[in-house]
Amino acid sequence: MSFNYNRLDKDDVVLLMVDHQSGLLSLVRDFSPDDFRNNVLALADIAKFFDIPSILTTSFEDGPNGPMVPELKEMFPDAPYFARPGQINCWDNEDFVKAVKATGKKQILIAGVVTDVCVAFPTLSALAEGYEVFVVTDASGTFNLTTRDAAWSRMEQAGAQLMNWFSVGCELHRDWRNDIEGFGGILAKHLPQYANLIQSYTAQKG
Amino acid sequence: MSFNYNRLDKDDVVLLMVDHQSGLLSLVRDFSPDDFRNNVLALADIAKFFDIPSILTTSFEDGPNGPMVPELKEMFPDAPYFARPGQINCWDNEDFVKAVKATGKKQILIAGVVTDVCVAFPTLSALAEGYEVFVVTDASGTFNLTTRDAAWSRMEQAGAQLMNWFSVGCELHRDWRNDIEGFGGILAKHLPQYANLIQSYTAQKG
Amino acid sequence: MSFNYNRLDKDDVVLLMVDHQSGLLSLVRDFSPDDFRNNVLALADIAKFFDIPSILTTSFEDGPNGPMVPELKEMFPDAPYFARPGQINCWDNEDFVKAVKATGKKQILIAGVVTDVCVAFPTLSALAEGYEVFVVTDASGTFNLTTRDAAWSRMEQAGAQLMNWFSVGCELHRDWRNDIEGFGGILAKHLPQYANLIQSYTAQKG
Amino acid sequence: MSFNYNRLDKDDVVLLMVDHQSGLLSLVRDFSPDDFRNNVLALADIAKFFDIPSILTTSFEDGPNGPMVPELKEMFPDAPYFARPGQINCWDNEDFVKAVKATGKKQILIAGVVTDVCVAFPTLSALAEGYEVFVVTDASGTFNLTTRDAAWSRMEQAGAQLMNWFSVGCELHRDWRNDIEGFGGILAKHLPQYANLIQSYTAQKG
Amino acid sequence: MSFNYNRLDKDDVVLLMVDHQSGLLSLVRDFSPDDFRNNVLALADIAKFFDIPSILTTSFEDGPNGPMVPELKEMFPDAPYFARPGQINCWDNEDFVKAVKATGKKQILIAGVVTDVCVAFPTLSALAEGYEVFVVTDASGTFNLTTRDAAWSRMEQAGAQLMNWFSVGCELHRDWRNDIEGFGGILAKHLPQYANLIQSYTAQKG
Amino acid sequence: MSFNYNRLDKDDVVLLMVDHQSGLLSLVRDFSPDDFRNNVLALADIAKFFDIPSILTTSFEDGPNGPMVPELKEMFPDAPYFARPGQINCWDNEDFVKAVKATGKKQILIAGVVTDVCVAFPTLSALAEGYEVFVVTDASGTFNLTTRDAAWSRMEQAGAQLMNWFSVGCELHRDWRNDIEGFGGILAKHLPQYANLIQSYTAQKG
Amino acid sequence: MSFNYNRLDKDDVVLLMVDHQSGLLSLVRDFSPDDFRNNVLALADIAKFFDIPSILTTSFEDGPNGPMVPELKEMFPDAPYFARPGQINCWDNEDFVKAVKATGKKQILIAGVVTDVCVAFPTLSALAEGYEVFVVTDASGTFNLTTRDAAWSRMEQAGAQLMNWFSVGCELHRDWRNDIEGFGGILAKHLPQYANLIQSYTAQKG
Amino acid sequence: MSFNYNRLDKDDVVLLMVDHQSGLLSLVRDFSPDDFRNNVLALADIAKFFDIPSILTTSFEDGPNGPMVPELKEMFPDAPYFARPGQINCWDNEDFVKAVKATGKKQILIAGVVTDVCVAFPTLSALAEGYEVFVVTDASGTFNLTTRDAAWSRMEQAGAQLMNWFSVGCELHRDWRNDIEGFGGILAKHLPQYANLIQSYTAQKG
Repeated sequence: MSFNYNRLDKDDVVLLMVDHQSGLLSLVRDFSPDDFRNNVLALADIAKFFDIPSILTTSFEDGPNGPMVPELKEMFPDAPYFARPGQINCWDNEDFVKAVKATGKKQILIAGVVTDVCVAFPTLSALAEGYEVFVVTDASGTFNLTTRDAAWSRMEQAGAQLMNWFSVGCELHRDWRNDIEGFGGILAKHLPQYANLIQSYTAQKG
Repeated sequence: MSFNYNRLDKDDVVLLMVDHQSGLLSLVRDFSPDDFRNNVLALADIAKFFDIPSILTTSFEDGPNGPMVPELKEMFPDAPYFARPGQINCWDNEDFVKAVKATGKKQILIAGVVTDVCVAFPTLSALAEGYEVFVVTDASGTFNLTTRDAAWSRMEQAGAQLMNWFSVGCELHRDWRNDIEGFGGILAKHLPQYANLIQSYTAQKG
Repeated sequence: MSFNYNRLDKDDVVLLMVDHQSGLLSLVRDFSPDDFRNNVLALADIAKFFDIPSILTTSFEDGPNGPMVPELKEMFPDAPYFARPGQINCWDNEDFVKAVKATGKKQILIAGVVTDVCVAFPTLSALAEGYEVFVVTDASGTFNLTTRDAAWSRMEQAGAQLMNWFSVGCELHRDWRNDIEGFGGILAKHLPQYANLIQSYTAQKG
Repeated sequence: MSFNYNRLDKDDVVLLMVDHQSGLLSLVRDFSPDDFRNNVLALADIAKFFDIPSILTTSFEDGPNGPMVPELKEMFPDAPYFARPGQINCWDNEDFVKAVKATGKKQILIAGVVTDVCVAFPTLSALAEGYEVFVVTDASGTFNLTTRDAAWSRMEQAGAQLMNWFSVGCELHRDWRNDIEGFGGILAKHLPQYANLIQSYTAQKG
Repeated sequence: MSFNYNRLDKDDVVLLMVDHQSGLLSLVRDFSPDDFRNNVLALADIAKFFDIPSILTTSFEDGPNGPMVPELKEMFPDAPYFARPGQINCWDNEDFVKAVKATGKKQILIAGVVTDVCVAFPTLSALAEGYEVFVVTDASGTFNLTTRDAAWSRMEQAGAQLMNWFSVGCELHRDWRNDIEGFGGILAKHLPQYANLIQSYTAQKG
Repeated sequence: MSFNYNRLDKDDVVLLMVDHQSGLLSLVRDFSPDDFRNNVLALADIAKFFDIPSILTTSFEDGPNGPMVPELKEMFPDAPYFARPGQINCWDNEDFVKAVKATGKKQILIAGVVTDVCVAFPTLSALAEGYEVFVVTDASGTFNLTTRDAAWSRMEQAGAQLMNWFSVGCELHRDWRNDIEGFGGILAKHLPQYANLIQSYTAQKG
Repeated sequence: MSFNYNRLDKDDVVLLMVDHQSGLLSLVRDFSPDDFRNNVLALADIAKFFDIPSILTTSFEDGPNGPMVPELKEMFPDAPYFARPGQINCWDNEDFVKAVKATGKKQILIAGVVTDVCVAFPTLSALAEGYEVFVVTDASGTFNLTTRDAAWSRMEQAGAQLMNWFSVGCELHRDWRNDIEGFGGILAKHLPQYANLIQSYTAQKG
Repeated sequence: MSFNYNRLDKDDVVLLMVDHQSGLLSLVRDFSPDDFRNNVLALADIAKFFDIPSILTTSFEDGPNGPMVPELKEMFPDAPYFARPGQINCWDNEDFVKAVKATGKKQILIAGVVTDVCVAFPTLSALAEGYEVFVVTDASGTFNLTTRDAAWSRMEQAGAQLMNWFSVGCELHRDWRNDIEGFGGILAKHLPQYANLIQSYTAQKG
């Protein structure tokens, strides 16, 4: 009955970025556009900072769903990238799953658009195969709060853990002394309110 | 302890549409009237598209609760239809349950008005008989968000899975290549924001 | 692993009305005052209608908490009534628990003010003694939504079922034919929107 | 440029209750049903208490709009009552306007359903004829807050004053000493939170 | 100081539909997509019903803003249509203004995307030229509520009247007897909650 | 047409604190209790700091409305204090008005409970007598936001200016150099978020 | 399957106050600043009242995060205090954990800033070591409600119980007779709405 | 009585950026931090794009209020910059006003923190001197929505026009053909949802 706390481990985790495409992003209404862009790029910066293997995928990118957001593509030039020919659940794409398994990691960080489909389906698939799945809720968006709430419920029930990009970064980092400047830089870039603290501090410290 | 992901399977699922009646609909206030009408009809279109056996039922339709929404009746002219003489929980109506069992399906999709009674009661009954139950939360409405939250909690606790019409459609469809036009048509009809993507795409592609 | 659906049974349930006192009611801010008064009285009417044994209790009613709402006292003139001398959790009052046990019921319906204390504590106590506990969420109020959410979470986790007065009434009634007029009268009195349906129906039926 | 404060004067005001009909009430979603029923009846009680001449009117009451709420009809058995044959703006009904003018009052209190039509149109008409118009905003309802905001803006711009039933009652009463019991009774009936204060006071005063 | 009520007059009004384009619509977040589509089409149906001269315009429709919503184009096949080459304020397009003036109307109904630019600018321009301008607020959308509130304030201050499609329809119609079926049909189509009233009425009337 | 900016002038303003009584405060629901207490006491601190003549009044303080909040009474031991025998509008109390006029001030700061009555009525009365009236909106509370919005509209329309305690303090202070410590102390006490800035600053400056 | 209700026991619980620092507090936006300050100080007062061993810790207090709130430091002058040199999860600080274990308590009360990191991480760590953990949700703050909801979900899933400072106080106190004055004093200080009840009571009792 | 539409004119307008300082920004809670940073920088980019003379000012920047946001300072290296020694209303600083007047412009664009003081006071001062003032509401922030609403009301009443950065940009630009790339670049940078449209367009156009 006792709980076992398996922390996110930068050496045992793979990041899945699912369907952050220019068309699909216009469907996201549980975040403001500024907030959501910031959250997605913050998560990407964290993955880069910790050298976490990352896998990108899109759905029908030649159609109305549009291409993957260019910033993401540029940030992960060498990451495995799967433009799926039709599978809605990216876990149904054999190449994608093969790439995930090839990393040898047991933990999955996942974010995507829309939460109830592009995130929930592979989350359930991965849980069913024994992975620990951590959903980055604020880098995943969908139509409205009702849909979000239902999707979160389904994933929780199956055992997924709900996190946000900031707590993901902190759980991976563990100790500021591992790299104060680097991690602080990410916070300053993606948390304007934290950047303000740093600026006041610097000014006042002289 | 490991999770088993039984996806919605179009060959093993039956849809129950419970008490979408003109009078009862005026009680629904956890959705705007436009949104709710759209959600209910979208779910019906999905059931038609995947040829999912569907069963309709109403409560006291000759009284203040009013008749079933005519669009639903027209969409399922041959579906089993049970105007219950008094049972509040449609699972207490023997003919209804017999019809459900006659389909031989093990998965149930359910939506209705109001969520805390007409959806929750048969959901709990069906779970108790071993069915997998998927509640279509956005085609189910009730008095207010407090009531909705309590009803969702009770159903979750009993093992129901909470979904929305869009994720139901996607989980049933699995792969766009199974029928791009057909499935895309449903989305265009019921997701104006997706219709806009298609229209821009078509115009720009020339 | 299968779920067992023990419905609310009018012959096996006792209602606990905890601390609906004039002073404490001024603390309730997760409902409008009109809504909350209506919900509490609706629950009381349901208990009367189904002849459910009911037990009332108050905390420090001679102090700032104030006396029990007079309507409740008048509706249950013969119900066991316990003005607790100091116990915060009414389950710590031996006489109260004795009265509950004397009913011989296995199901408990509970509502009170405030949700996180006067409802949550006896709910947890009763669950620990093996009772099935159904919390009437909309006849229970507290300081704000954050507090409400936390209190609901704690009770859910312990196995309580969250309901609302309308679903309680419907689950107890089971079939309209048991008494159409009586049950309809309660709805007409406490659901203005349903009263309107009845009125339109009556006028139009002529 | 200086402001002239013409208070509501019980000897110079007429109340117009417009289209509070059982069908139309189902359209009101800027208030909870309990709150709205309470507000409408509170306004009616105030008019009765101050013997304010009141005029009732309905639109197509034999059709889907339904009959006027029975409580209102019963409270004003002798009031002029106009079931309009088709005019949307009740000010377009000559008999209605004649009745208003026959009162000889210069101030109008108005409430109705829906705010943007049944209240706004006669408000603008009456202002154009030189009446002072006081809109009872919480006894007037409409589809949603966007519509409410636009309707309020239009009426404000034309010079209407926006009030609520409680401030209407207080401005008419002027001094508690005119009738403490009577006015307090209305507040106790329609402000549960005030009834609680009275109850605590009474209990504590002994 | 007295107010002059110039009602919307179907013989003296022109409708301007500004920039309802597939791309721009993805920017609208002060309404749900279903609600907004419904509102825009309801306004168009009203204009058709009353034979109100209507003028359509788009901004950069060959670029990312996308083409005008096809339903609008189909509904107004013979309406003047101006695909502006670059003017942001459509009132800066001479042909557009010429078309407005050619109608000889003194009242303008306007709706568009986004409210703070495509609606506010021509509204201010038209007011400055002496037109009476009625903004259809619920067929006009923008980025968020803060922006909406500021845009409404600016237009109010300049003398524009804020309305919604329903009140526009009612003020134009004036009397149900002018065409009960026709006008009722529009309401039934665009107000699901009113359609339900009609359906209950019809069923119960027999 | 040009605007004349008469700033709040500490030598020409009187503060009216109306009906902040223990019973009436339980009616205030447009602020959280913590926020409201803080706002009222902040306004009082500002009046003390600038030595603004202040006048206190209560309505029926021996009845359910309860006594004035003790902190206020203690802060203004020598202020004129009027326990009104029955007048709802404190401007109807001759002694009160005499006290206001005796100050010889032309500007009035007013706050009270409830906004739509105890603030709005004297505000309109004072405007009618030529005073400039500044309503401290966040030290004035009422039943809900609908009521607040209507009351604000009525007061704006009559020419009152809506402010908050912080802007009142700043407009009176004009220049930090007049007393940095004193004014900063009030902010630190009533703006926890500003207190945090000061604390960080002090710590970092060393 | 039966639930075991281990109440908070003042003799078996330790309080952890984590990172309530002046800089970090500016990040908290799921509470108003007034509410949050009040909640944190109320929790501290409760711990003092029940003589609960308390442990304080901060993260990088010499940097932008700023010093611990001075009120907390003053209230617990003798409490173990750990200014962590870099560990984000305070449970990673050996001295901190040693201090917790040295208390010999089996229950942990925890509050901190931000909820998703500074509260969630040590909560999960403590649960994994077999502690019962009670999160004081309203004395713990974070960036926004989405983040809060995800963090609560993760902690619930692991077995933490979500409470609020008021229910913590009540569960520890158990019976008012243990010290009416003392406990009432805390409520009067931190619940203005309860202070009002006491004041009315005292005035009316005479 | 007729309205005169003086558009924002890039040759006759000066921008005032008031007190966007790292400490004060932590007080802004009517926008998310991401949204607010984006809005402020978008406004700055617009001023740069149209070469609008800009004046910056800060209040007590060596104290807890902190230094001006560095991005702003860098964007306007040659702009007049006034670190006010104590005046709260920047219009009380003679050098500042002299700089404004030296521009010879008749229109003022203003944004700042906090809205009710640092924006409202100079807005009223400038209006009183005959300037046309356009408040950029979404680049101005304050404590909460109540405060924002009151501040907007006061400025509107005095004749200020409320705008948002996007409408400011569009009113200045007038015609896309003046510089499609340049203006589109600003939108792409500060409206992620518009950037997505551009990206889809570019991809699909090929």
